[in-house]
Amino acid sequence: MTDLLAIMAHPDDAELLCAGALLATAAHCGRTAVLDLTAGERGSWGTAGGRSEEAAAAGRVLGLADRRNAGLPDGSLVNSADARHIVAGHIRALRPATVIVHWPEARHPDHRAASELGRDACFLAGVRNADIEGDPYRPRKVVYALTYAEHAPKPTVVLDISAHMDRKLDAIFAFGSQFEGKTAMGDVFAGDRPIRDQILAYHAYYGSMIRRAYGEPYWTRETMGTEDLAGLAVDTF
Amino acid sequence: MTDLLAIMAHPDDAELLCAGALLATAAHCGRTAVLDLTAGERGSWGTAGGRSEEAAAAGRVLGLADRRNAGLPDGSLVNSADARHIVAGHIRALRPATVIVHWPEARHPDHRAASELGRDACFLAGVRNADIEGDPYRPRKVVYALTYAEHAPKPTVVLDISAHMDRKLDAIFAFGSQFEGKTAMGDVFAGDRPIRDQILAYHAYYGSMIRRAYGEPYWTRETMGTEDLAGLAVDTF
Amino acid sequence: MTDLLAIMAHPDDAELLCAGALLATAAHCGRTAVLDLTAGERGSWGTAGGRSEEAAAAGRVLGLADRRNAGLPDGSLVNSADARHIVAGHIRALRPATVIVHWPEARHPDHRAASELGRDACFLAGVRNADIEGDPYRPRKVVYALTYAEHAPKPTVVLDISAHMDRKLDAIFAFGSQFEGKTAMGDVFAGDRPIRDQILAYHAYYGSMIRRAYGEPYWTRETMGTEDLAGLAVDTF
Amino acid sequence: MTDLLAIMAHPDDAELLCAGALLATAAHCGRTAVLDLTAGERGSWGTAGGRSEEAAAAGRVLGLADRRNAGLPDGSLVNSADARHIVAGHIRALRPATVIVHWPEARHPDHRAASELGRDACFLAGVRNADIEGDPYRPRKVVYALTYAEHAPKPTVVLDISAHMDRKLDAIFAFGSQFEGKTAMGDVFAGDRPIRDQILAYHAYYGSMIRRAYGEPYWTRETMGTEDLAGLAVDTF
Amino acid sequence: MTDLLAIMAHPDDAELLCAGALLATAAHCGRTAVLDLTAGERGSWGTAGGRSEEAAAAGRVLGLADRRNAGLPDGSLVNSADARHIVAGHIRALRPATVIVHWPEARHPDHRAASELGRDACFLAGVRNADIEGDPYRPRKVVYALTYAEHAPKPTVVLDISAHMDRKLDAIFAFGSQFEGKTAMGDVFAGDRPIRDQILAYHAYYGSMIRRAYGEPYWTRETMGTEDLAGLAVDTF
Amino acid sequence: MTDLLAIMAHPDDAELLCAGALLATAAHCGRTAVLDLTAGERGSWGTAGGRSEEAAAAGRVLGLADRRNAGLPDGSLVNSADARHIVAGHIRALRPATVIVHWPEARHPDHRAASELGRDACFLAGVRNADIEGDPYRPRKVVYALTYAEHAPKPTVVLDISAHMDRKLDAIFAFGSQFEGKTAMGDVFAGDRPIRDQILAYHAYYGSMIRRAYGEPYWTRETMGTEDLAGLAVDTF
Repeated sequence: MTDLLAIMAHPDDAELLCAGALLATAAHCGRTAVLDLTAGERGSWGTAGGRSEEAAAAGRVLGLADRRNAGLPDGSLVNSADARHIVAGHIRALRPATVIVHWPEARHPDHRAASELGRDACFLAGVRNADIEGDPYRPRKVVYALTYAEHAPKPTVVLDISAHMDRKLDAIFAFGSQFEGKTAMGDVFAGDRPIRDQILAYHAYYGSMIRRAYGEPYWTRETMGTEDLAGLAVDTF
Repeated sequence: MTDLLAIMAHPDDAELLCAGALLATAAHCGRTAVLDLTAGERGSWGTAGGRSEEAAAAGRVLGLADRRNAGLPDGSLVNSADARHIVAGHIRALRPATVIVHWPEARHPDHRAASELGRDACFLAGVRNADIEGDPYRPRKVVYALTYAEHAPKPTVVLDISAHMDRKLDAIFAFGSQFEGKTAMGDVFAGDRPIRDQILAYHAYYGSMIRRAYGEPYWTRETMGTEDLAGLAVDTF
Repeated sequence: MTDLLAIMAHPDDAELLCAGALLATAAHCGRTAVLDLTAGERGSWGTAGGRSEEAAAAGRVLGLADRRNAGLPDGSLVNSADARHIVAGHIRALRPATVIVHWPEARHPDHRAASELGRDACFLAGVRNADIEGDPYRPRKVVYALTYAEHAPKPTVVLDISAHMDRKLDAIFAFGSQFEGKTAMGDVFAGDRPIRDQILAYHAYYGSMIRRAYGEPYWTRETMGTEDLAGLAVDTF
Repeated sequence: MTDLLAIMAHPDDAELLCAGALLATAAHCGRTAVLDLTAGERGSWGTAGGRSEEAAAAGRVLGLADRRNAGLPDGSLVNSADARHIVAGHIRALRPATVIVHWPEARHPDHRAASELGRDACFLAGVRNADIEGDPYRPRKVVYALTYAEHAPKPTVVLDISAHMDRKLDAIFAFGSQFEGKTAMGDVFAGDRPIRDQILAYHAYYGSMIRRAYGEPYWTRETMGTEDLAGLAVDTF
Repeated sequence: MTDLLAIMAHPDDAELLCAGALLATAAHCGRTAVLDLTAGERGSWGTAGGRSEEAAAAGRVLGLADRRNAGLPDGSLVNSADARHIVAGHIRALRPATVIVHWPEARHPDHRAASELGRDACFLAGVRNADIEGDPYRPRKVVYALTYAEHAPKPTVVLDISAHMDRKLDAIFAFGSQFEGKTAMGDVFAGDRPIRDQILAYHAYYGSMIRRAYGEPYWTRETMGTEDLAGLAVDTF
Repeated sequence: MTDLLAIMAHPDDAELLCAGALLATAAHCGRTAVLDLTAGERGSWGTAGGRSEEAAAAGRVLGLADRRNAGLPDGSLVNSADARHIVAGHIRALRPATVIVHWPEARHPDHRAASELGRDACFLAGVRNADIEGDPYRPRKVVYALTYAEHAPKPTVVLDISAHMDRKLDAIFAFGSQFEGKTAMGDVFAGDRPIRDQILAYHAYYGSMIRRAYGEPYWTRETMGTEDLAGLAVDTF
């Protein structure tokens, strides 16, 4: 069993989008894992080999119990039946309770494909008669990571990552080939400031939504539930 | 201190809209209260006196620690400076942590006025120099009750009231003058079925959003926060 | 000619989502039909053969003039050019005026694929030079069934099915392999109540939107039109 | 009894916004009326006396059974308790089945106030114990006129006014003091074209939504209902 | 380098949707181009050969520096990896700064596919290691043309095309096989008026949004930016 | 004439919300002004007198041509006819081309009242026959400041304030009584970081929307217009 699995398009996407959730879960003794769908072999900086080593180093920072690569093609990821079966096989192997995927209207075509692919694979992994190795298993929850998504809706929930912000930055900068000395990378635009400052600014912005120092925003299709209305977090005033 | 206070336009509104939350909080030893803004003296059925007795009986079913009436005019409630000061005085007396108000775009003009009035009074009660009896106090959270609100947004959160559904119905039907033998009342339209069945249907609908038997829907302006993404309630599949 | 055709992913989807519309049209002497895209052969309960017999029995309850199966693969439905041509062929054969399809953001991947597939096939069936058997024909209207769709928009229109609710339940429960003794099935979550009660609750909820006992919700991309503003149905108060 | 009543802020607002609905209802032998809330006495063009004569002439073009003026102050209309009681008195006198009001987020402050005032007065007129002359009466439906409202939502329904477009223009231009020789007036901006052409362009745009020559757009809070899904107007393709 | 490139599904789509933008850019000495994805060979009127000649004539009216045809299949356009590589090759050849594509939820299946295909090809053209002829190049901006899109959001920006409206009509009617004597064509529904009048009405409607005679509406995913708030165009009143 | 006027509820609101716009306009030789509606005399920190001196100092940092106080009551601001006439008088005196107001759904009741009050006063100031000193004058544009507004829509436009960020902070911290040593103030929640850092984070977040270092977000009811689609700012990729 895995408590929290991130299914992301490229190595370093998990770090950028949901390292806080992975760190917070691990800090409470949960098992966490990352499934990188591609090796990022077509990226403009670094090599697939170099990124693989960086991913391993970042995984150690995050305290992951497992990190895998689905071997799908970077730059032309599609939500095909074949790809879904491959990803569903990894889901059956890892048996995650909760899965984090990309926001479906992300800027990068691979991220959009990865979002639907991850969601559909979660469903498929639970179909009894599907032609997939392993026992049928369906994660109970899929959440969408919204960080840096300019056109995203209001988050369903923001996770307090104040205690994990420093390690999140360490995990991101383990990908030295991608971030060192940059002012823009992927969906992060820092104007002329260091990219590290801009990442902090994003999380400070999301943190303010829950009156905390730093936050990571998530969206879920299903409504939030509670058993204690009087105890709900986040003050109005 | 009060844990949960409902500020509602007419006696029986608290019962219809948020009895589940009041019952659930009381069941966990929280102090609950209701502030009825008017005596419902212009309602089409029953008398103000009769409704007052019914309100007291319903309050006993709900286990309220306090039930008050602000004495504002039924049928012409407005969010005036005077009304705000009166309501803020009750808030300073009750010192509620969380306050439930009407949805601001409700069908009934009094409900719309009550929604803004309740929210603004919460703010005003915390202003140090305001001309209100009692020590400055600001509730930490305002939530909006959405039940029966046809045009409302998706709830921010649904409260599981499965264990309290029967008593909620008892509290509602303590207002015999308003509900006995009716198929429509206020915002509840039951076609030709008993109104009791329609109330159950609404709560079964909201319950299904959180995969529970019965639910009450609420909306908050502020985003939901969490410290445990992997433990979020409500399954996706 | 067919007055109303439902194009749905699995046998029993038409019954769950739009049996009321099929029954209401048949009751007014309209010709109705169902095109099941798959045989539901990968479902967790029952067999394809059993479901086929159940579909026939349910079709008799609904009074369908035609029920067909497109033979597409359950669990991996896609909106491919091939699938579109197959479905467009059935549309040319049935010549439906109005077509009901799934809501495009449904929970089940097959439902999402079926929604776009049905809509695009309606368009393609009317293209003169397309490589499809039969005379070019384009349905005049496509409507989306929203029942049970948690994240759907406000319905464009709700159909009064009060007079057909009992037969709708009969049609659903003709699929004994899928529903007998269940408290959850597909998109229907009943908590711990019988699934029959939860289906009734959903339709009572939608019915209340039009001040009727039971309703089925639909969405259309095109705006509603009228020639009589003073005669519009559904009271405000 | 009145079949359709328009409650509008200034003389000529009814003509601009809903003349088509008034004409279509009258053409089917319905009784129609207009309640102008103010005399437009502070308008930049014409005089109150002149506008009153123009209103009478326009009323004859529209075939109104009644046209009244509530005598409220132009330029400082508010939804006060007093204003509501005055308007509710007229509603009790006219007993309209359906009432058209302004869109609540209109550009002109009087239009916004008139929208809420009209809606609340409809509710108040039905309150049994209210201090208003006449028998309690509540209109069954309130609709919001959206024409020219730049920021309005998608219409709930568009009325086909193709057969009444010419007379609508006649009714508008009966207000010669307001429209003759103008290229902009109120919410209508015609660039450098005659205002008549721009009014036609708006209605041609709304007409295209229902595949008709000319239309008037309306919004309702309540959902649309139907008893015949297969017969719904407005083609998809 | 090209200043503005329209990537559209069928010859005549560029004329209908964005001729104003192409004309305005050419009028300021910008280089403009059109990439027609298909030859429109399955259209109901005219022949592929005839449309090709019409496209050339329309291109002369628009003053295009380049007009190309991607040779993709009319009626079954898909956003496949192959199609993306073909389109990305043309983008590398033309090197456009800004690209106009269809609105992604258009009525015609080809338009929806073309929208995503165009957007993804812009991204792919900039990937260094992609298997595409020519030097890596990524357009800096993608905008979506909304004209005639019934269900589209509020435009991000409307382009003033008042000075170019006549030539836009000339360019459209260069496609005599498609428009002569029609009252409906593609997404344009003119009731019983000439289609030319309806096209004018649409642009007059969009023009009124910016207080100009005629406009073309566009949407962008990214937010608008400015360096001069006090100088922003479009008056409020 | 004034090029840009901010109408805000309390001294320091203009600094927090729109100092960047005031500074940028002044830097281009535009005349700028601030109308503080109240003296902030009921605020929890500082005195009215002290805030007045701080406002004067902040005004010097901003280079304002005029700063006025409308003398309306802090803590109970309402959009009354009287208040509107007072504000409209100041508008006639200052004759601003563009006016910045609060976002109408702000957290603070005074801010909500100020938003509608400012907008309606702009309209009223242009009514010829209104009982207000000075010549009729209507600002051409009203824009809404969204900074810190948790529940606001996507901005219509973001202003690049990168060159003015330092002075904006200076202007804010001229209100030493309100901000020195705080981690939360008004709508700004900084967790446990200095409030200065959180203000920077907000503006870095908005800046990233336009690919610049720091930005201020604004919303307008009217659509944006352009005469040059190919030259639109803000890159997609």
